[in-house]
Formats: sequence, C-alpha cells, structure tokens
Amino acid sequence: MDLNALEQLLAAHKRDELETSEAARRISELHYEDIGYARVDHSRSARQGFPEVVFGAGKRREQVVGIVERLIRHSPNVLVTHTDAGTYGDVRSIITDAEWHETARLIRIQRDNTELGVGEIVVVTAGTSDIPVAEEAALTAEAMGNRVKRVWDVGVAGIHRVLAERSLLQSARVAIVAAGMEGALPSVVGGLVSVPVIAVPTSIGYGASFGGVAALLGMLNSCASNVAVVNIDNGFGAGFVASLINRRWPNTSEE
Amino acid sequence: MDLNALEQLLAAHKRDELETSEAARRISELHYEDIGYARVDHSRSARQGFPEVVFGAGKRREQVVGIVERLIRHSPNVLVTHTDAGTYGDVRSIITDAEWHETARLIRIQRDNTELGVGEIVVVTAGTSDIPVAEEAALTAEAMGNRVKRVWDVGVAGIHRVLAERSLLQSARVAIVAAGMEGALPSVVGGLVSVPVIAVPTSIGYGASFGGVAALLGMLNSCASNVAVVNIDNGFGAGFVASLINRRWPNTSEE
Amino acid sequence: MDLNALEQLLAAHKRDELETSEAARRISELHYEDIGYARVDHSRSARQGFPEVVFGAGKRREQVVGIVERLIRHSPNVLVTHTDAGTYGDVRSIITDAEWHETARLIRIQRDNTELGVGEIVVVTAGTSDIPVAEEAALTAEAMGNRVKRVWDVGVAGIHRVLAERSLLQSARVAIVAAGMEGALPSVVGGLVSVPVIAVPTSIGYGASFGGVAALLGMLNSCASNVAVVNIDNGFGAGFVASLINRRWPNTSEE
Amino acid sequence: MDLNALEQLLAAHKRDELETSEAARRISELHYEDIGYARVDHSRSARQGFPEVVFGAGKRREQVVGIVERLIRHSPNVLVTHTDAGTYGDVRSIITDAEWHETARLIRIQRDNTELGVGEIVVVTAGTSDIPVAEEAALTAEAMGNRVKRVWDVGVAGIHRVLAERSLLQSARVAIVAAGMEGALPSVVGGLVSVPVIAVPTSIGYGASFGGVAALLGMLNSCASNVAVVNIDNGFGAGFVASLINRRWPNTSEE
Amino acid sequence: MDLNALEQLLAAHKRDELETSEAARRISELHYEDIGYARVDHSRSARQGFPEVVFGAGKRREQVVGIVERLIRHSPNVLVTHTDAGTYGDVRSIITDAEWHETARLIRIQRDNTELGVGEIVVVTAGTSDIPVAEEAALTAEAMGNRVKRVWDVGVAGIHRVLAERSLLQSARVAIVAAGMEGALPSVVGGLVSVPVIAVPTSIGYGASFGGVAALLGMLNSCASNVAVVNIDNGFGAGFVASLINRRWPNTSEE
Amino acid sequence: MDLNALEQLLAAHKRDELETSEAARRISELHYEDIGYARVDHSRSARQGFPEVVFGAGKRREQVVGIVERLIRHSPNVLVTHTDAGTYGDVRSIITDAEWHETARLIRIQRDNTELGVGEIVVVTAGTSDIPVAEEAALTAEAMGNRVKRVWDVGVAGIHRVLAERSLLQSARVAIVAAGMEGALPSVVGGLVSVPVIAVPTSIGYGASFGGVAALLGMLNSCASNVAVVNIDNGFGAGFVASLINRRWPNTSEE
Amino acid sequence: MDLNALEQLLAAHKRDELETSEAARRISELHYEDIGYARVDHSRSARQGFPEVVFGAGKRREQVVGIVERLIRHSPNVLVTHTDAGTYGDVRSIITDAEWHETARLIRIQRDNTELGVGEIVVVTAGTSDIPVAEEAALTAEAMGNRVKRVWDVGVAGIHRVLAERSLLQSARVAIVAAGMEGALPSVVGGLVSVPVIAVPTSIGYGASFGGVAALLGMLNSCASNVAVVNIDNGFGAGFVASLINRRWPNTSEE
Amino acid sequence: MDLNALEQLLAAHKRDELETSEAARRISELHYEDIGYARVDHSRSARQGFPEVVFGAGKRREQVVGIVERLIRHSPNVLVTHTDAGTYGDVRSIITDAEWHETARLIRIQRDNTELGVGEIVVVTAGTSDIPVAEEAALTAEAMGNRVKRVWDVGVAGIHRVLAERSLLQSARVAIVAAGMEGALPSVVGGLVSVPVIAVPTSIGYGASFGGVAALLGMLNSCASNVAVVNIDNGFGAGFVASLINRRWPNTSEE
Repeated sequence: MDLNALEQLLAAHKRDELETSEAARRISELHYEDIGYARVDHSRSARQGFPEVVFGAGKRREQVVGIVERLIRHSPNVLVTHTDAGTYGDVRSIITDAEWHETARLIRIQRDNTELGVGEIVVVTAGTSDIPVAEEAALTAEAMGNRVKRVWDVGVAGIHRVLAERSLLQSARVAIVAAGMEGALPSVVGGLVSVPVIAVPTSIGYGASFGGVAALLGMLNSCASNVAVVNIDNGFGAGFVASLINRRWPNTSEE
Repeated sequence: MDLNALEQLLAAHKRDELETSEAARRISELHYEDIGYARVDHSRSARQGFPEVVFGAGKRREQVVGIVERLIRHSPNVLVTHTDAGTYGDVRSIITDAEWHETARLIRIQRDNTELGVGEIVVVTAGTSDIPVAEEAALTAEAMGNRVKRVWDVGVAGIHRVLAERSLLQSARVAIVAAGMEGALPSVVGGLVSVPVIAVPTSIGYGASFGGVAALLGMLNSCASNVAVVNIDNGFGAGFVASLINRRWPNTSEE
Repeated sequence: MDLNALEQLLAAHKRDELETSEAARRISELHYEDIGYARVDHSRSARQGFPEVVFGAGKRREQVVGIVERLIRHSPNVLVTHTDAGTYGDVRSIITDAEWHETARLIRIQRDNTELGVGEIVVVTAGTSDIPVAEEAALTAEAMGNRVKRVWDVGVAGIHRVLAERSLLQSARVAIVAAGMEGALPSVVGGLVSVPVIAVPTSIGYGASFGGVAALLGMLNSCASNVAVVNIDNGFGAGFVASLINRRWPNTSEE
Repeated sequence: MDLNALEQLLAAHKRDELETSEAARRISELHYEDIGYARVDHSRSARQGFPEVVFGAGKRREQVVGIVERLIRHSPNVLVTHTDAGTYGDVRSIITDAEWHETARLIRIQRDNTELGVGEIVVVTAGTSDIPVAEEAALTAEAMGNRVKRVWDVGVAGIHRVLAERSLLQSARVAIVAAGMEGALPSVVGGLVSVPVIAVPTSIGYGASFGGVAALLGMLNSCASNVAVVNIDNGFGAGFVASLINRRWPNTSEE
Repeated sequence: MDLNALEQLLAAHKRDELETSEAARRISELHYEDIGYARVDHSRSARQGFPEVVFGAGKRREQVVGIVERLIRHSPNVLVTHTDAGTYGDVRSIITDAEWHETARLIRIQRDNTELGVGEIVVVTAGTSDIPVAEEAALTAEAMGNRVKRVWDVGVAGIHRVLAERSLLQSARVAIVAAGMEGALPSVVGGLVSVPVIAVPTSIGYGASFGGVAALLGMLNSCASNVAVVNIDNGFGAGFVASLINRRWPNTSEE
Repeated sequence: MDLNALEQLLAAHKRDELETSEAARRISELHYEDIGYARVDHSRSARQGFPEVVFGAGKRREQVVGIVERLIRHSPNVLVTHTDAGTYGDVRSIITDAEWHETARLIRIQRDNTELGVGEIVVVTAGTSDIPVAEEAALTAEAMGNRVKRVWDVGVAGIHRVLAERSLLQSARVAIVAAGMEGALPSVVGGLVSVPVIAVPTSIGYGASFGGVAALLGMLNSCASNVAVVNIDNGFGAGFVASLINRRWPNTSEE
Repeated sequence: MDLNALEQLLAAHKRDELETSEAARRISELHYEDIGYARVDHSRSARQGFPEVVFGAGKRREQVVGIVERLIRHSPNVLVTHTDAGTYGDVRSIITDAEWHETARLIRIQRDNTELGVGEIVVVTAGTSDIPVAEEAALTAEAMGNRVKRVWDVGVAGIHRVLAERSLLQSARVAIVAAGMEGALPSVVGGLVSVPVIAVPTSIGYGASFGGVAALLGMLNSCASNVAVVNIDNGFGAGFVASLINRRWPNTSEE
Repeated sequence: MDLNALEQLLAAHKRDELETSEAARRISELHYEDIGYARVDHSRSARQGFPEVVFGAGKRREQVVGIVERLIRHSPNVLVTHTDAGTYGDVRSIITDAEWHETARLIRIQRDNTELGVGEIVVVTAGTSDIPVAEEAALTAEAMGNRVKRVWDVGVAGIHRVLAERSLLQSARVAIVAAGMEGALPSVVGGLVSVPVIAVPTSIGYGASFGGVAALLGMLNSCASNVAVVNIDNGFGAGFVASLINRRWPNTSEE
C-alpha cells in the first residue's frame, strides 16, 4: 500500500474534506480495486517492490486495457507480457507513451527511470532462438530500475564463446541464463561466477526436448550450486527475481 | 584460486626456494587436485564464494574422507551433504572439530564464523516433515556466513499461522521456503514479501505427489513473481543461492 | 425413470388404450431412447437428480440438436457444454427459449427454477482467466436449483484478497474453487471453511503447467482435508457435485 | 477457535484471575500452539469441523506423541493416520483409551460419539486389496459422527455384485468408492445413485497401474458427473469430505 | 506368397517362356514390389490372412494411389485408413468401385465377400463420439469376411444400457469395445461375456484424459481377464485381430 | 452360474426338501459368496469360461486360503497368481493336490484335464529373464484346457533364432509373446504368422525401460496388425485371452 | 580455426600490411563472428570436422540468410535444416548454387565433393513415412563427403524385406536406421551387422507413439549392443555422427 | 558363424567321419545352442564382432554359469555385466582365469589381447559417482581390443577441469562420456572434439533427476551434433559401440 496516499486520505478525512464512506472505499482501493473480472492489486508495489504485472494470454483485449488503466493511476511503470500488437494498439490509444517490444511481445510503460540496483544484471542466451525469452527478462529488469548487459548465442557446444565473455559475466551482481534444448549453459555460467544464476528454460528444441522439459530438468539438476530456476519461457519471472536480488539493501527511503 | 597462496609460490620460486617443477605442480593444485577418483576443485571458493561441497550419496566412505582432507587444507569451512553417521565417524577421526547434524544428515566443519550477509535469511517450512530439508538449507547458510531465522510448520491449510509470522518474514533479505505435497506455501510467502523467495520442493507426500513432483510443479508455476526454484529436497542448493543473494556487494576486501 | 409417466402408461395399457407392443416401446424409452448415434438416457434424472447433460465436443451439430430434442421432452432443464454459437443457432431454431452463455460456451434451457438447495454455493477463481470454467460451474449449479455467489480473481499471491471474502466463503454450504498455474487456492479456501471444497484445475498457465496438470496435482495433494477434485477444466462436473452436496436431504416430495 | 474457552479466558482476565501476559499466551494458543517442530492448530476444529489430523508418515515417534498430547487437550476425538503399532504403543502409554486399527494402520481416540450426519455414508471397494484404504475412510467418518455401511469386493468385472447392493447404495447420503487397477467402479456407482460419490484411487495393481495413476485418471475422467476424487490411497480425505457432505445444515448450536 | 502364381511362373520358366532374370524378378515381386518410396508386401495376405493395409497419414496422395494400384492387382479387398476425401477422389479415378466411408475416414475396395468367420463380431462404443473409431473396426472386420453387429453409446454411467444388450453381446464370437474418457466399458463387457474382448481406447475426452492415455491405462489394468488392448484410436487393428480370432480353424483350402 | 446346481436346488425346494430361505441363500451363493473380505464369484465360470482367478498380491495368506477353499467347491481347476511358497504351504495343507510352480510363482489345482482348444498355443520369450512371465501364461493356458508349446530366448537381436522356429509358430492357433527391453519380438512374430498375437510386455530391463513401459509402448505401436497387448508382466491375462481364442466354437455341450 | 588463414594474417601483420587492431579483429573472427543475434562459429570446422549447421526453426528468415552468408565465406559446404522454400528463395538470391531438398526440407550448398569416408553409409527406413528424416541424414552424410546407399520401407512386420538387403547392410561401414511407431528395426539391423548402428526415432505414429517417444524408448532399450540413438526426427545428427564414424583415421592430409 | 569350424564339420561329414544327423546338429549349434532357458548365440561374434555378452540381472546364478560355459568354448573373451561377487565365485570355480571387477560389477574372461583399434578410446566422467558406469564401458572396450584412457570427475561446473584435458580428448578416435544430474558434459566434450561422442546418462542424482532421465534428455537434446546416446547406466553398450567405431576398416583377415 502506498503510505503517502494513505496518510493523505486519513488527513483529508480528519479535516472533513472526505465523507467516511468515501474514505473507506478509497482506502480499500489502495489495497485492490474490484473491476468485476479482476481485482487489481494496488498494494503489490508496496509488498513486492513492483506493481502487478499483467499476463496478457487468456485475457480479452478490453480486459487488458481495463487493468492497465487502473494500474497506471498508481504506478509509474507497468508491464503487459504474452500479448500482441493489436492489444498494444488499444493500450496506446489511451496511454500514448506505451512502448511495444516486438521480440519479447511485451507492452511497457516506463515513466520512472530511477536506478535501484547495486550492480549490473547480465542476461545470456545459449542460442539465437532463445532471444525472445531473454529479451523479456532484460526489459523487465530495466523496467524495475536495473542496468542490463546482453550476451547472445554462447551455447556450450562452442565453449570458447562463453569463456570469451568471462570477465563480463564475473562483473555482474546476478546472471540470467536462457537456454533450450539440453539447458546446459546455466551450469557452465554457474561454475564461472560467484553470484546467483537465474536459469530460464526455453521451449526451443524438438523431439525429446518436450517443449522445454529437457532444459528444465537439466537446470534443476545443475551441478553448479548457485543456480535457481523459473518456469519454461518465463523471462519475466527471471527478470523480476534478478531485480530483487540486485536491489539495494536495506531499502531505506533516502536512497 | 587463492591469490595470496599463488603470490607466495611465485615469490618462493623466484627466490629459488622452490624447484620449477614443484612450483608448477603446486600452482596447478591451487586450481584442482587430482586424487584419482576425484578432482578436488580448490578454485571454487574464489569463483563461487564457497568451497566445493561434498555430495555424499553414491561415494564410498573413504572417498568422502579423502576429499574432505584435501578441501580442509584450503578452506576453513567444509560441508558434506547426503551422508551418514558412519561416514561422520571416519571424518571426525581425522578432523576432530567436525560436527554431525542428524536431522539434515550433514557433516559440517566451521572454523570461520565471519558474517558476510547484509541481512537475515528466513527459512520456512510448510510442515514438520519438511524440517530435514529446511535444516540442510539453514546449516548451509550459516556455514556461508549468514544469520538465519527458522519458522517451522506454517502450511497454507492454516493460513493464520503464516500470517502470524508476517513481520518476521518481511524483515529478511531473502526467504527459503520448503514444502511438499501441493507446494503452495512459496506462493503465499512470495505474495507477502518484497525479496526473492527460494522455493525447495520436498519429497514429502504420497500418491499423486510423485516424490515431490507435485510440489515442484506448483512452485515453478507460482503466481508470485519473486519465486525461483531448486531441485526436490535440495536444501543445500537453496541455502547456497540464498547466501549469495544476501552477500554484501561489492565484495571488497575491506568490508 | 419417471414414475408418474410409468404409472400412466401402465394404466392406459390396462384400459386397452394402448397396444401391448406400443406400451413396451414407450416404457423402455422411459429408460433410454435409441436414436442410432446415441442412447438418450431418460432415467438419469431419476437416478442422478438431473437429466443427462450433452457434452458438445466431438459431436456433430445435428447430433447435438437431435439429443436436445429428445431430452427436453422429458426434462424442463437441459444443458449443452463445450459447444459453440453455431450449434446454439440450430438449437434455438427449434427451442426458442434456449440461452447462449458465451463465456462458458454453454447452451442452457431452464424452464424450472425451483430452489432445491439448503444453502448457497460459492464459486471462486484464482484469476481472471479462470472465469470461463468457473462460470460453467456456476451456470450448472443454477440450472440444478441453487443460489450461487461468484468471487473472481482472489489468487494466493495477494492473500488479502481472499481473506477479504472470508465471511462470504464461510457462509456457503459448499465452495467451488477454480485455479490454474500452481492451483494453490483450494488449499487456502479449504483451510478457511468447514464445508466441502470442490477444486477444479484449469488449463491456464504455460510451460511446466502442462495444460493444467500442475494445478491438478496441487489440488490432489492439498494439505486441506476438505478438498475433492474434478477433471481439468471440468466446471460442469464441479457444479454438478456441488449441487448434489447442497441438495436438501432427504429428498422427500413435500419439500 | 473454541468460543467457550475464549470467553472463559476473557472473563477470568477481567476478574483479574489471570495476568494479561498469561491471558494473551493462552488465547494465542487457542489458535495454535508452537511446540518447536510443529504448530498444533487448535482452531481447525472451529474452522473445519474436526481437529487437525496427524499424518504419521515422516514424523518421528516422539513428535507424533507430542502432537497428540496437545490435540487431545482441546478435542475429544483425535486421529493419527499412516502410522504403526510401535507409535500406537507410545501413544497408549499416555492416552489409555487410544484404539489401534491394524487394517487401516490408524490410531483413533474417540470420546465423543454424537451423531452429526443427516444420513448414512456407504463405503465401497472394488476388491479385497482395497479394504485398508476404505477402512481408513470408514473409521474417519465414524470418528466425525457418521453412521457407516461397508460394501467390500464388488468390482465391475462381476457387475451383478454391485447391482445386488443397489438399494443399499441408493439409500446413502454420500458414497465413498475405493478402487485400484482401472478404477472403474466409481463410474458405475455414480450412475446408480443420485448423491455425491467420493472416489479414492488405490495403489493396488501392477505394471501399467503405476501405483494408482491408472485408477486416478480413470476416476478423474469418469463419465458419471457426480464423482469427485481425492489423492491415491487417501482414505482419510475421502472420509473427511464425505463427513462434511453428510453433516446437518445449518450447523446450529442446538443440534 | 500366392502359391498358384508361383507355380505358374516356375512352369513358364521351365517351358522357356520366360527368361531366367525376368522369372527371378517376378518371383521376388510375389514377395514384395519395390516402388521406390515403398516395398509393397504381396506375401502379407499369405502370411497374415489379409493384404497389407495402407496407413494413409503421413503419405502423399500419389504415394497412396501408387500403393493401392499395386495391391489391388494381387488382392480383391484393399483398405486405406486415416485418409481423406481428396485421396479417395484420386483412388476412385483409377479404381471405380472404391468406397468412401466418411465417419471412419477410410477407403475400402471390396470385391470378395466370402464369409470367413465362425460367428459374429460385436462392436460396442461407450459414447457417440467413439463411433468413428468403432466404425473403422467394423468396416475392417467386414472387409475381412465377418458378420458385424454394432451397439453404440452404452457407457457405464448408465449401466442399464449395456445390460439391455447382454444377450446380443453374449452371442458373439468376439467383442470389440471402443471407449474414451475412463475407458471402463471393456471391463464391464468383459465380465458379461466368455469370449475375448478387444479394447480400443479412443482419444475422446479432455483434461486428464491426455488424448486417450487414461482410457488406455484403464483397459490395460482391466480386472476382467479376457481383455486385450490395441493402440489409442486403432479401430483398424481391433477389427483385424478380432477377424483373426473369429476365423474358421483350421484354415483348410476347401473352405 | 452352474445350471445343473441351480436346477437341483429348485427341484429340492419344490420337493420341500429345502426351506425357501435356505434355497434363496444357496441360489444367491451360486452367483457369489460373501465371506466378509471378498465376494467369491461363482458365476464367473459360466460367464467367462473359467472360474475367478485369485490374484495373490496384497491379500493376506488366510484370505487367499479362504477364497481358494470356496472356489474349489464349485470348480475343478483353480489358479492363484502372484503368490509365494508360504501361501502354497497353507493351501496344500487343506488341498493336497495343489501344485507349486516356482518359476511363475503360481499355485495350480488341476482336476479336470479336458482339452478344450481347436489348436495349439505357442508361448515365446525374447530372453531368458522373460521366462517367469511366459511360464505364468503357459500354465494358465494349460489349466484352461490347451496344448502349449514353449519357445524361449529368440529375441530380435539374433533374428535367425526366431526364424528357425517359423514353422512351429505358423502351426499354432494363437501366439503369446513375452518381451522386455524394447519389446520388438511381437512385431516380428506378428509378421510371420496369420493368427492373433497376444503381446505381454515384461518389466525386464533397466534405465529407460521404465519397468516395462518401453516394451509396452513398443507393442501398442506394433506395425504388425495382428498384435493385441495385455498389462506389463500379465502372463496370466495373456494365457487367459489366448485360451478363449483357441476355444472350440460354438461351445456346444456335446463337444 | 583455419590455420592457413591465421598464418596469412600473421604474416600480413608482420609485413605491416595490416594494422594491429584490424589484425586482432580478423583473428578473433576466425573463431567466431558476432553479428548481434548470433555468434557464427568459424572454428567449428576445425574442431568438429564440419562447419556449424544452421537450425532453421525458430529463426527469422533474414537471420538464416545472414548466418549462411558468413558461413559460406569460410566453408565450401553449408547446410540449413528445418527450413522452408521461402527461406530457400532468399538464400538463393544471394548464393545461386544453393540447392533445395523438398523431402528433407533442407538447403544445401555443396562446393566441395571430396570423398572423406573409408566405406559406405547405408540409410534405412522402416516405412515410407520415415523417408523425410532419413533423407535429411543421407543428404548430411553426402555433404560431409560420404557415399550413401538408401534402403526404404523394410520394417519388421515383413521381416523378409530387411533380410533381402542383408548383404547390402553388411557391406557398409555404418548404418543409420530411421523408424517410428515401435522403433524395432534398429534392433534387427543391429543383430545383422558388425558395425555401429545410429538409430533415429521418428515422430511417425499416433496414439501411444507419443510423437516418437515409443520409438525412442524402443531404441534406447535395444537388445542389440551396437545401437546408439539420437533425438527424435534428428536425421541431421544421425548423418553427422555416421560421417565421423566413417571418416578416415588418422585424418592426415595425404590420405 | 565360425567359418573354420563349419568347413571342418563339412569335411568330416564328407569323409564319413560324422553322421549326417550329428553334422546337422553341430552346424546348427554353430549358430546357437539351445540349453533350455537360453539359446546361446554362437554366431554373434561373426555378425557383430564380439560374442554375446551375458546380462546378469534377472538370471539365476546357475543360468549365468551355464551360458558362460557354452560361450567360452567358442570365444576367447567373455563378459558378464550387472552381476555380483557370488556369481563370480561360481564362474571362477569352473573358469579359473575369470576376473572380478568390483567397481563395474562385471566378470571378464580375457584370453585374447589382440589390439583391433585404429586409435584410442577416451572414457570421461562428470563426477566421482559416475565411475562405475564408466568403468564398465572401459573394461568392455579393453575386452574388445582397444587402448583406453580414463578421465574422471571433470564436470561442467568447473569447466577448467575438462579444458585441462583438451589435448588428451582431441587425440582419441572416439570419446565416451558418462554423466548424471543434468548430463551436460557430452555437449561440452562434443564441442571440443571432431570425433563421435557416445554419451551415457547415469542414474546419479536425486529429485528431478528421475533416475537418469534428466541426463538422458539432456544428452538427446545436445546442441553438439556429434553426440549419440545409449541407455541410462549402459556402460557396456557405450563401450561396445565405441569399440566398433574404433575398429580397423576394412576388417580384412591379414590385419
């Protein structure tokens, strides 16, 4: 919950500028707003450090627009993932500074560019086909106030490619590694760095890759101890966790 | 690689106190030491911030002892996981300050207690049966220089139990949550805190829990965005990743 | 079997108003009617408390229409699930009071609105995308004579949302909870109420949700003891079971 | 939470018979009691209509005894499932009226035999080998205040056996059906009765039964609409849900 | 191999009406004919009692036509399964008596109607949606010289429907039972008859039916001992095996 | 049901040699006998051509003995599968002509050796380790009145071994083929013969054989059309189905 | 890395014909070339004996063209697999001697036809539908300098077809066997030859073939010891491994 | 088949030193010898280049001894895999030069040490726990006439360990790589060498390693094109295939 907003409401109520019933409604909306098909969670920013992110798949276009409209009233930065250009069109017609990121199929509204991280986040892919997922991670991390470095196509079958980026990898506060097929790259990167590695299996592959299951299992069984895993193709989740790892601590207001 | 040790070796060689061939052998051993059945990785501490940890399962007792002997020469703190009291007996006969942790089935040698974290790590379980895995995580985190809080048996079927610990959870720098059965607790904890949650599925359950698979899938599909997952029953890995998240940054020597 | 209809047939036969062979045919049709591609089960209402429901998927349009035609002769309320607007058009051209429910993709004919339940049924979803399945459950329960309350989008990552509806949940005779992804909501609801919870996994999610399998396993392994589960996306089944739970007992005719 | 107990505590506190700190401790314990390895949930009886049930597997013997000791102070009836005769010995040495049920491997303390149901619960098995799971369900239902009828070994390969029990099945308020192998019996029973059927897959079978998975899938895909499913071998859960279905409604205090 | 044809070839070669190389080529073609993309197996009729059947899926239209052309030269009856109306058009333009069976999506050329069975084959479905698979079985059995009875839509949720057909089922020499969802019907039919039951799981269902896997597992674990199973949706295979079971024995030439 | 026994009972009742209530009890026992833990199905012989077979696994020793005692009163031949030598000892102490078959772990009582088949059944194994399952099939077929030929260890990696037995295979009325690992032998045998092949996957193998799943899938996907499959390690079922296939038809009493 | 090219660059740099910075850039590109979305691996030919092969699926058309452009500068032969005719059009507009292979859906540029193998590679399919995968293997092997024999449609259900090709199979240095459905052919071929067999499961089949999983498991469990397996539908990988097996050793230039 | 032995038999028969029936029996035994429970395949050496290997698991001790006795009469080198020390005792009591290899649990009789390979085989493990499987591969390769190099414990989490062995790896004619957990090492080795890599997944790991499935999938999806895979823990198969790859070609007798 936005404490400033809450204090202002309470003050206004005390000064009789606000009816009690209206104050109650507004305070409860600081928590979440019930718009029928969704309860927009306005306190998530306070609880989790970033506003609720809209997962676009399986929602109707007007539902996405409706949720975004509510979120942007309370948060400067908003993300919609797993969406399409048509939905972007509808969003931009009411929020003109919304950006469309084709590769990651993601809408981003970014009005606050404050840097919140202590170091850099490096995002790495095993192959060219893993870039969309990795880009979703990178854009999320940027939206959450991080500097991001991208390293594409350094899969383990040409091990010299990832070794060539060793110093770049070793200077980051956290690494995100996206890989499909056998999903071996996080283990190798994990062995090279002393920071957490967030592994993202991608659904790239065919046959016995089973839509990313082979990569997922590879990453869960990584012999490198500093690897944690998110869902298949969940670039957003990887970017989110990495951002929280990189976030300055303690989160004191003067910073 | 231990830079001090390397500089001393080079200096000794320059002063002709060391034969060239002997110097070469010792330098290469700073990286790893080949003892036939294993290549003990002495540079892991430098690369990953903690020495190689011995996974006891599938190794013969004398192999575990042999590896621990080499590791303790280079590192003050050593862990052996997935082991048993008999192996502990053999280890203690040569390393008298080795500790045995029955619940977690883990041997720990801890000679360095420097605190390295910026905050606390909270370790949470859904049930009583998840404690062994959670304890493995907690002991690992302590061995890596962290203050740890333990919160046992706050599963979601009695939601007031976890809500009662809300403030404790919200004060930590990182949370580890171990749960079997449906594995729902990380989602709830994830929704309450603004820091990363490392979820550890446990093999607790029966029938369609499939040895932890139900919990694993639940955690990978968590609707809370700040959850990352490690392998089933991998308390050690969770403690390791959480320790790196909590570690002071940058890792400058004066700190 | 409709006992009244049977008695009338027997009486008519006794009074020689009906040939024996015709009487036999009509009596056997009270059980089921063989229309070539289907045996329409007219005794199901007697045996199960509701007429056979038409599962539209995999049936040709004219088959659906043919079955509905036979059912409506014997039962005031008829449901067709997993169908489409085109089939609805064909049904309505012969049964003008048929309703089309777009969200649930369901045709409903409801001529009898007698209330049969002892309490209310509450239908809950974890997210916006679970609404179609939940709506199928709600419409089914209404067709079977129940009062239904709907609570949408109260997933566990924002636990305050479901807690806010605690009293509503606790006043119901039975709860239906639809959730995809990790499927954790039934466990939380189950812990809050003292009535049966019918959990419906939905196929909402991606990657390791495996089309609802993660949610299904989560629900089967629920640590709340009052949870029973139906098939993935089986809103109809959930509504059906919940209706039988809520039904007045004993089912005496004067009630 | 036990409201009587709460009122007495508050009254005692008001009369200054109780220190404020002591009153607070006791009130919080009315909710749950933290005994280190477990948080014994004393409010579950109020929330769910039956005290927390102890799942014995994976808990040490002294842990089970400790939890039972706390539960019995607040609840007249206590169950321990998935346990063994040794644990029973320890429990009985402190609670002399504890009963041991060998077939179901279950400890039951039953001091309150009030009947709480509106009708009977019938428990059915497909084969002889399914009896232990079914017995766990039956004992649970009895502990929760129900009259129970048992029908053993009426699997579908001899369909006349189940048809012979038709009237018994049709007179129950709810049916529990335990079956292994192909798990077809709930569908047949479901087609015969107009009440909810709680299906319990058992791990009986071999080869492609996969420890109960075949039966589980069969039950989830039942063509009978009145079937809901619990976890493999979860006799306790089936008995619990069936008890709540059978419970008199509304749950007014005078009843 | 066609023994008559072989003897004629040998005689012709002896009479010098045929070059040795040409004789060799023709004899080898009696076994199979290599047409580049396929080796048409002309000896299968002799070895297996029916010519090779063309599996249409995954073959190009001209390949199907080419194979059918070769087969019809040696066998009076030819089947093409898993095909479409377009392919049928091409086949009929060269073989004018080819029939198209829309429900089963199967082309049949039937020039020999000799009855070869000792009794009847009954083909049964659980539901309306299983008819296409069952029809493939029935058409195959007819093409192989059997009398076939069809019993549609007698699934176990209305057990009286299958019981009503008991005498018909019990008069058959072999039963084929097609069912999706939980696949329980073969167990019930198996319990009613004293002949082999060939069970065909169909991919009808949704959610945890997993495209027919639930039905397949149900059938493999049938508690009726007279059930054997073929692949999901393999109506053709069921019809083929049933035909061989029904075939007169011994297969003496005068018959 | 045994018609002779039924007629005698009815006659005795008519002659007043039997009380009506006693007559009713005995008639119902002709169908099945309820002995508490089991309903012994005495009509199975009439319905399925062989008495109920006792599946020993998961039954207590005294339960097996009790069931066998009842069965042998009505049927000359009785089988107990999946049992052990200890149970055999108990059975033999009351039924002295019971035989123990160590390889197949099966008890057989065989008092009637009438030959009921039209031809021979050939039982084939791919390897030496598959013999126990195959022997269960062979003993079952013999108990059901068939002549059986055994062909062991002719797996496809030495294709000349199975080809050497071609004429023996081709003279049988039905073939049973047991194979583990890749389960390929039924396809090869299926291609050589013109009779049904009952394939039994065995759990022989390791690693990706998954306890017989690889063999099971291989057999279900056989490219030979005359293959039907029973459960993993289900030698009994294979023998049962093969016996029914081989049985003389029609089953007239004079034969 | 191309040693000639490296020496020329070093010489040119020494003769001051090349700036140091330019020389460094060109040398590093001999290893790989970073073109943004891909790091084209120019040293793979040296390390693995064949240039990097472009996996077309999941790459945009312009990305494929860009990578091919870079590869062809360093290697005479280039392959693009899993691509389409449209991409071929774009490739041919800049590389006029590119060939399109419709069956295998593969682009091949082959400027060097040197024969590098010691013997022949035989490529075998079980059925007509497996030809596309087999053709990908054959084309790959030819591109890598091998003589290839093709044997199509010799599946095990007609074992005489593969036996007829025995001598051809036995004369090869290595065999590639592609099969779907039960995947039994590699075991049979493996038993006939004394050379390695590379088995390629194909996704041909339906129902319980699970998109090639049945064939994959069959091949992994082959009872023939000379069988190794590649991914489902991975004709390219099979051709690649077979080529390396067939390659002359040692790889000296004078041979 | 042993051609010398065949010629001698034929000659002896011609010289009337041998009855025709005896000659026939002995010739057929040159192919295989039927000893009841097994058909010992004596022609395998001719067909596959090495005699049949005895898979010990699932065979009784006396069966293993019986088979070994027959094999050693025809072949100088014999292997028994998956066996135990007790069986070894029995084998050595009749074959005194049999060796016991504890790590690999393998009996080896090696009377012929002719070197048959063109180069060396390198056997590599990811960890210490993978050594038993790798040792089985190495011993097999040695038994088949190869020089073998062993490289233990060079898993990818310490990538410098495998890079340190680069030149050794690159000098081999074929590499065998055994790895459990994520199974990533074959991809890295595959990228370093230009020869075939035979990957052996091991069952080392826990949780989501699923007994080697994670490693198996990782290897099947390897992004290195020169990797082929054998079954989980199949060290023998890997050694066998690698031996055939390394074998001199053509296999002329003078070599």
